[in-house]
Amino acid sequence: MKGKNRQLFATCSRELVAESIGTFTLVFAGTGAVIVNYLSHGVVTHLGVSFVFGAVVTALIYALGHISGAHFNPAVTLAFWSSGFFQRNRVLPYIFAQVLGAVVASGVLFLSFGSVANLGATLPQNGNWQQSFTLEIILTFILMLVILGSGLDRRAPIGFAGIAIGLTVGLEAACMGSITGASMNPARSFAPALISWTWQHHWLYWIAPILGAQLAVWVYRYLSNGFSELKHEEEI
Amino acid sequence: MKGKNRQLFATCSRELVAESIGTFTLVFAGTGAVIVNYLSHGVVTHLGVSFVFGAVVTALIYALGHISGAHFNPAVTLAFWSSGFFQRNRVLPYIFAQVLGAVVASGVLFLSFGSVANLGATLPQNGNWQQSFTLEIILTFILMLVILGSGLDRRAPIGFAGIAIGLTVGLEAACMGSITGASMNPARSFAPALISWTWQHHWLYWIAPILGAQLAVWVYRYLSNGFSELKHEEEI
Amino acid sequence: MKGKNRQLFATCSRELVAESIGTFTLVFAGTGAVIVNYLSHGVVTHLGVSFVFGAVVTALIYALGHISGAHFNPAVTLAFWSSGFFQRNRVLPYIFAQVLGAVVASGVLFLSFGSVANLGATLPQNGNWQQSFTLEIILTFILMLVILGSGLDRRAPIGFAGIAIGLTVGLEAACMGSITGASMNPARSFAPALISWTWQHHWLYWIAPILGAQLAVWVYRYLSNGFSELKHEEEI
Amino acid sequence: MKGKNRQLFATCSRELVAESIGTFTLVFAGTGAVIVNYLSHGVVTHLGVSFVFGAVVTALIYALGHISGAHFNPAVTLAFWSSGFFQRNRVLPYIFAQVLGAVVASGVLFLSFGSVANLGATLPQNGNWQQSFTLEIILTFILMLVILGSGLDRRAPIGFAGIAIGLTVGLEAACMGSITGASMNPARSFAPALISWTWQHHWLYWIAPILGAQLAVWVYRYLSNGFSELKHEEEI
Repeated sequence: MKGKNRQLFATCSRELVAESIGTFTLVFAGTGAVIVNYLSHGVVTHLGVSFVFGAVVTALIYALGHISGAHFNPAVTLAFWSSGFFQRNRVLPYIFAQVLGAVVASGVLFLSFGSVANLGATLPQNGNWQQSFTLEIILTFILMLVILGSGLDRRAPIGFAGIAIGLTVGLEAACMGSITGASMNPARSFAPALISWTWQHHWLYWIAPILGAQLAVWVYRYLSNGFSELKHEEEI
Repeated sequence: MKGKNRQLFATCSRELVAESIGTFTLVFAGTGAVIVNYLSHGVVTHLGVSFVFGAVVTALIYALGHISGAHFNPAVTLAFWSSGFFQRNRVLPYIFAQVLGAVVASGVLFLSFGSVANLGATLPQNGNWQQSFTLEIILTFILMLVILGSGLDRRAPIGFAGIAIGLTVGLEAACMGSITGASMNPARSFAPALISWTWQHHWLYWIAPILGAQLAVWVYRYLSNGFSELKHEEEI
Repeated sequence: MKGKNRQLFATCSRELVAESIGTFTLVFAGTGAVIVNYLSHGVVTHLGVSFVFGAVVTALIYALGHISGAHFNPAVTLAFWSSGFFQRNRVLPYIFAQVLGAVVASGVLFLSFGSVANLGATLPQNGNWQQSFTLEIILTFILMLVILGSGLDRRAPIGFAGIAIGLTVGLEAACMGSITGASMNPARSFAPALISWTWQHHWLYWIAPILGAQLAVWVYRYLSNGFSELKHEEEI
Repeated sequence: MKGKNRQLFATCSRELVAESIGTFTLVFAGTGAVIVNYLSHGVVTHLGVSFVFGAVVTALIYALGHISGAHFNPAVTLAFWSSGFFQRNRVLPYIFAQVLGAVVASGVLFLSFGSVANLGATLPQNGNWQQSFTLEIILTFILMLVILGSGLDRRAPIGFAGIAIGLTVGLEAACMGSITGASMNPARSFAPALISWTWQHHWLYWIAPILGAQLAVWVYRYLSNGFSELKHEEEI
C-alpha cells in the first residue's frame, strides 16, 4: 500500500470507528433508558426516555460530527448517498459500522440487565403495522429534512444543527414513541431485535425509515433549488 | 412568462411549499402529541406535549428559516406585513399555504388515529371565552415580541432566535395550555377544528392571536426606535 | 430640553419600557404557571413550573437584552451598579420599572384567575425563614456568578449567556423551589405578595437576593482579576 | 517572590477558587435536588434531578470555563493530564480544590436539611457493584469523549461544548442514575459519602470514572489522529 492510500485508509478507519462508537452510545443510552425505565417501574418516564434519545444525538453530533459526519443511522447514510454528498463505496462500510456498534450496545445491555423489555426493541402498537409504517415514514421524513436544512444548507446559522436534530429526535420520540417506537433508524431497531430475538414486523423499521429519508432528499432538492446552496463535502 | 419572472415564481413556490411542510410538521407533531397522550392514557404528559410544540418550532426554524422565513402562522405573517418586512402580495399565498399544510396534518392524524381528543382542537376551558381571549392576546404578544427581538433585531446574537422562539412556544404551552389551548396560531387551531368539526369559540383563535401579534409590532416599533436596528429583508 | 438630552431621554424610556415588559412577562408566565398548576390539579408539575421560569428568562434575554440589558430583577440591577457597569442614576428607575411590570402581571393574573395559590407568592417552607434566607443567598450568588461569567466576560463564547442564565434559573427553581420558592428576585416576589397581600417573611426576598448578588460581584471581581476581562458597557 | 511568579501564583489561585466554587455549585444543586426530592416526596422527580445535574454543568462551563477550564471532576483533570493538555504540577491542587468545594456543599446541605437521603451519596443498586462498576466506566467514557470532541477539537463549532457536555451529564443521569447513581465524578461521590459517612463500594466511584475517562483519552487520541486537531492550551 502506498503512502497516500495508507493515509486514506487511516482516515476511513477513524470514520468507521467513530460511527461505531456513536451508534453504540445512541443505542446504549436510548434503549438503556427503556430498559432501566422498565426495571425501575417507570421512574425514567416516557418523556425521560425521549429526552435521552434526543440529548444523546445532540451530544454525539458535537462530539463526533467533525470526524464521521455523525450519521449513526443507515437511513441517513443512504440519504446522503442518494443526495450526492456521500461516496457510494463508503455506504456499506458505514452501515456495517453502525450496525456493529448498535449490536455491541445491545449486547452490553443484555449482559448488564438480562433480557428485559425486549432490550428496547421497537414494535408497532397492537401489531398495527400499517399505522406504524406510515408514521415511521413521516417521522424519518421530518428528521432527514431537518438534517438537510439545518446541517447541510449554507444559509442556516453555524453550529445549531446539533440542537435542531437532537430536538427532532426527542420530540418525535415523545409524540409517537408509544405508537411506533419512534425508531427512524434501522440500526437502532436491529440491535435489540437481534439480541432479544424479537422479529415481529421488523422489516418495517428498515423500509419505512429508508423511504422517509429518501422522500426528504427529493423534497429538499426541490426546496433548495437542486441543492445549489448546500455545503460541499469538504465544508461539512 | 419571461426568465426573470419564471425565476421569481420558482422562488415563491419554494417558499410556499416550505411554509406548507413546516406548518404540516408543527400540527402533525404538536396535535399528534395531544392525540397520542389521550390514546396512551397520559403517557406523554402535559409537559411532554408542551415540549413537542416548542421543540418542533425550534427545529423547523433551523431547517426552513432560510427558505421561507419560518412563519408557519398566519398571525406572524400578518405581523411581518404590518411591520413592513413582508410584501403585501405574499400575505395571502403564505396564509393559504400554512392552512393547507395544517389541514393535511390533521387529515393524516385523523386517518391514523380516528377522531379522538377533537384532533387536538383548542377550546377555552369551561367555555370561558373572555378569559381565553385575553390570555391568547397576551401569549401571542409575547411570542411576536420574542420573534422580533431575537430574530429580526441586528443587535441580537446570531442564530439563537430558533432557541428563543421555540422556548417561548414551549413555555406558553406549559403555563397556559390547559386554560386556552395555547394556540397563538390560527392555522394550528383551524385544521383540527375543520377535520373534527369543533367550532365552539373558534373565532377567538383567529382574532386574539392576530391582535396580540399586531400589538407586539406596535410595541417593538417603539422599543427599537422605529425598527431602525432591524435587519433588511435580504439579511433575514 | 435640547436635542441631545431628548435623544438620551428617549433611549432611557425605551430601556425602562423594556424592563417593565420583560419583568411583566417573567411574572406572568412564571407565577402564571404556579397558578395554573394549582387550578389544574398539578398538570403543569413542579418541573414544568421550573421549566417555565427558566425558559422565559432565556427567551427574554435574546428578545430584549440588546435594549435594556435584560435585568428584570432589582438584585441584578444593584449588582451591576456596585460592579461599576451601571450608572447610579439609572438604578432607581430600573427597579421601579421592574416592580411596575411585575405588579401589572400579578394584577392581570388576579383578574384572570382570582386569588388562588397566593398568586404564586414565595414563602419559606414551614415558616423556616433562617433556612430560606441562607438558601436564597446561595441561589442568587450562583445566578449572579453565571450572569457575570457568561454574560459580561469577554472570554466566554458569544451568545450563550441567555442559555446559561435561563438554565440556572430553571435548575435552581427545580432543586430549591419547593423549599424557598426559589425567588432570587425581589420584584418577582413583591408583585404576588402585594396583590394577594401575603407578607409573611417578605423582607427576606429583598435582603437575601441582594446580599447573594453582591457576594457574587465581590467573588467574580477576584476571579476575573478586578474585572479586567469584562466587556465595556457599550459592548454589552 | 518575584513579579512574574507572583502573577503566576495569582492566576493559579483564581483557577483553584473557580474549581472550588464550580464543584461546590455542582454538588449543592445536584445532590441538593436529590435531598429536596426525598423531603418533598418526589416532587422534583428523577427526571428533574437529572435536569439539575445536566443544567448546572452547562451553566458552569459558560460561567467559569474561561477561568479554570471547568473540570469540576478529578477524573476529568486526570484525563486532561494524561492527554497532555494539563500540566502535571497542577493536577493535585485542582483535585484538592474540587474535593474541598464538594465537601463544603455537602456540609451546607447537611446543615440546611440534616442527614437525609445519605446527602445524595451514590450507591450501586442492590449492592451489585460489578454492574455499577462496568456502567460507570462506560458512562464516564462517553462523557470524556464528548468533552474531548466538542470542547477541545478545533473542528467542532465554537461555544456548543457547554450544551453538549451538560446534555451528556443530564441524559446519563436520566438513563442510569437509578442503577449506579450516575456519578462519573469522584468528587461528587466523595463529599456526600464523607459527610453522611456512607462508604459502601465507595472505591468504585473513584476507580471506574478514572478508568472510563482514561479510556476515552486513548480512543480519542486514535480518532483525532494523535490529537493533531486539538486546540493548544492557550486557545481553550
